Amino acid sequence: MQTEDPRTLICELGRAFYDLGWVSGTGGGICIREGDHVVIAPSAIQKERMDPAQMFTLSLDGEVLTRPDDPKLRPSECSSLFLKAINLRGAGAVIHSHSIHATMATLLFHAEFTISHLEMIKGIRGMAYDDRLVVPIIDNTARECDLADSLEAAIRAYPRTQAVLVRRHGVYIWGSDWVDAKTQAECYDYLFRAAVEMRRMGIPTCMTEGGIDDASLSARRAVIRDRA
Amino acid sequence: MQTEDPRTLICELGRAFYDLGWVSGTGGGICIREGDHVVIAPSAIQKERMDPAQMFTLSLDGEVLTRPDDPKLRPSECSSLFLKAINLRGAGAVIHSHSIHATMATLLFHAEFTISHLEMIKGIRGMAYDDRLVVPIIDNTARECDLADSLEAAIRAYPRTQAVLVRRHGVYIWGSDWVDAKTQAECYDYLFRAAVEMRRMGIPTCMTEGGIDDASLSARRAVIRDRA
Amino acid sequence: MQTEDPRTLICELGRAFYDLGWVSGTGGGICIREGDHVVIAPSAIQKERMDPAQMFTLSLDGEVLTRPDDPKLRPSECSSLFLKAINLRGAGAVIHSHSIHATMATLLFHAEFTISHLEMIKGIRGMAYDDRLVVPIIDNTARECDLADSLEAAIRAYPRTQAVLVRRHGVYIWGSDWVDAKTQAECYDYLFRAAVEMRRMGIPTCMTEGGIDDASLSARRAVIRDRA
Amino acid sequence: MQTEDPRTLICELGRAFYDLGWVSGTGGGICIREGDHVVIAPSAIQKERMDPAQMFTLSLDGEVLTRPDDPKLRPSECSSLFLKAINLRGAGAVIHSHSIHATMATLLFHAEFTISHLEMIKGIRGMAYDDRLVVPIIDNTARECDLADSLEAAIRAYPRTQAVLVRRHGVYIWGSDWVDAKTQAECYDYLFRAAVEMRRMGIPTCMTEGGIDDASLSARRAVIRDRA
Repeated sequence: MQTEDPRTLICELGRAFYDLGWVSGTGGGICIREGDHVVIAPSAIQKERMDPAQMFTLSLDGEVLTRPDDPKLRPSECSSLFLKAINLRGAGAVIHSHSIHATMATLLFHAEFTISHLEMIKGIRGMAYDDRLVVPIIDNTARECDLADSLEAAIRAYPRTQAVLVRRHGVYIWGSDWVDAKTQAECYDYLFRAAVEMRRMGIPTCMTEGGIDDASLSARRAVIRDRA
Repeated sequence: MQTEDPRTLICELGRAFYDLGWVSGTGGGICIREGDHVVIAPSAIQKERMDPAQMFTLSLDGEVLTRPDDPKLRPSECSSLFLKAINLRGAGAVIHSHSIHATMATLLFHAEFTISHLEMIKGIRGMAYDDRLVVPIIDNTARECDLADSLEAAIRAYPRTQAVLVRRHGVYIWGSDWVDAKTQAECYDYLFRAAVEMRRMGIPTCMTEGGIDDASLSARRAVIRDRA
Repeated sequence: MQTEDPRTLICELGRAFYDLGWVSGTGGGICIREGDHVVIAPSAIQKERMDPAQMFTLSLDGEVLTRPDDPKLRPSECSSLFLKAINLRGAGAVIHSHSIHATMATLLFHAEFTISHLEMIKGIRGMAYDDRLVVPIIDNTARECDLADSLEAAIRAYPRTQAVLVRRHGVYIWGSDWVDAKTQAECYDYLFRAAVEMRRMGIPTCMTEGGIDDASLSARRAVIRDRA
Repeated sequence: MQTEDPRTLICELGRAFYDLGWVSGTGGGICIREGDHVVIAPSAIQKERMDPAQMFTLSLDGEVLTRPDDPKLRPSECSSLFLKAINLRGAGAVIHSHSIHATMATLLFHAEFTISHLEMIKGIRGMAYDDRLVVPIIDNTARECDLADSLEAAIRAYPRTQAVLVRRHGVYIWGSDWVDAKTQAECYDYLFRAAVEMRRMGIPTCMTEGGIDDASLSARRAVIRDRA
């Protein structure tokens, strides 16, 4: 699959991400690096109904190398953000999702989303089951391109993260190639959803670094059980 | 895609909206303007199993111009409502959804649904991320056609809105063409769902015009965190 | 579509109902009347992977008229229940769903599920928007066939109902033909889900016969708003 | 269907389980016994995009008999766990799911998940509607292969169970063949989801062995009704 044409893949992944609720309302998107340039979808078009002929190619510093015939199309507004992950982390693909689980998670955490002791954490590159996963949350801006500076700052401040949440907006997630980026995105999305569910039921999302003692955990659980 | 036949498109969108839960139980629907007339589906048929040959065409004042061969079919009961958005706003397509998110939202707000500071608000024509989105809510009536007057009143009273919610019923959403109407509908639906989730977790859906001060917001969030 | 072969339709609807979560784990099912006999699926097979050649035909008093070649197959355990709706109400099709919304609804209501003032109520045959929809709930039994007597009693006691809920189990829903039964089933399922959501948020599912006064309703809603 | 090639079936079921949310992020999986060996998918590949040529075959004591051409592929990390159910219970197929319903259920119960009086319990081999279904929960480990000993202990300690939950991780479920394993998995998943919903609404998931008296049950329900 790794040898498939990025233009075809972006269209196919657009349909799959639409079904997951990540790119509804023409929002969100994906870019895939191909050699020394990046293939990227147009802005403001239905992400589940794209055509390979609609794709742009951009140089790594954001210059448009090739463009679709349709003169009305412009490159995705995420372009400068996608390029941050590509240039600062060597990403081979970047996904931007508006998943409601990601957005809700940004409403329940302050500067950082944190979670530990869930198997899905192992799906995040370099993380173990009992590691404390930290995802930085940056504040949203009126224009998407204005996020670039704070996204870069977050990428630099959190050298282990593969994702940056944007408050009241969604999340940027990357990987070494499209399969890796998609895998990370599925794991993060599961963890965002689990965290929201856990909060709703009064279950801590993250054990303290010193570990949460059994008595304390049992006490919390007892409260939940008593409601039943 | 814009050049596709509206009859084919309505059938295809019917299937897509069924999968989203917008048109189950033969409810809901879509109409598309084609030149000086409107293509519209029949009433009370399964919206995910329609055939292009089942469509009606209506003039802009609601006269039936062409009808399907099947004599049992009648034009959608939404017709007079669809025509309000077309004639008052120049809409090129109108969607009527029974989405449970829309219906639940009408149970949690009084005369207006309001939300601010969510990225998806940018998907609504003319709105910025930090604008306060207002959707009027009209009361439901026993017969769908009796909604026409209050729908017209709401459209006139809220000149910026692209949607009108109907209490305990659903929502009417329109756009300049089918792509625009569908995009607006996806953004509104996301916002209705987010608002219901936010209410459930004690998060305000709308910041006050003077802005919600950080201390207040932190205090509210602390309550949620303390439950965890 | 009405002229399609019931064997093919049952397989197709099995796939659709599986996607809706109504017939997972080989549970649930559908039967369709064809002239003076009934076409019915086998018991305990995957409802989303059925083949037309696997269908049984039964007479209206439950005698097996034709059976599939596979000697291991037995007619659905729902057969005697399906025949109750067919013989007592003249149903042309009956659907049995294990939808989690139906099952959860039976845990939140006593002898009757009641809801009023939701547009989807109009989808139920003979009901208006502001009618009070009543669905009887019968208690579950260890064996499905033992439900037949209480199902018959409920059908006789509630002459207007098109559905009977089974506590901690699911629901039986019927209609004049498969399209009507499916439409009723979608409307009921929406209403079961809405009722569970409303209860969760402290919203009454049913206005009293004398009507709920605005002050009372506002007071209840104020509680919800205050949480936000 | 029982005669279909296990390699093809594993790919097809991978797609189906992905749509159910059981194997996202390359996690989870399925193996199918074929005669005296087991067909198993590779580790860390997208479970919804597998190819029959990517499968491994293992002997019943875990030796690799045949392997795919791609030298980068390794057998699923679940292999030693899958073989426990095959060797200790004579299972013909084993499913490992990361379903969020399973994971959430492990956060709300201590050593055992218990539920009674739901129709879906009848879908579990050997269980009646009013039986008390017990699923052991073992603690998660940093490496999946380290689960083998505690999984074996749970299988031996609970001779009637067809599933073992893994805390903060997911569930292993088996059956006599792939159809049986899939059916059990769908029933268990429904029950995990129902239990989480019931807890959230203050409804006991399990009646005591002596039976819960009506007065007590009514009192609990009254609390829920009073909230409405």
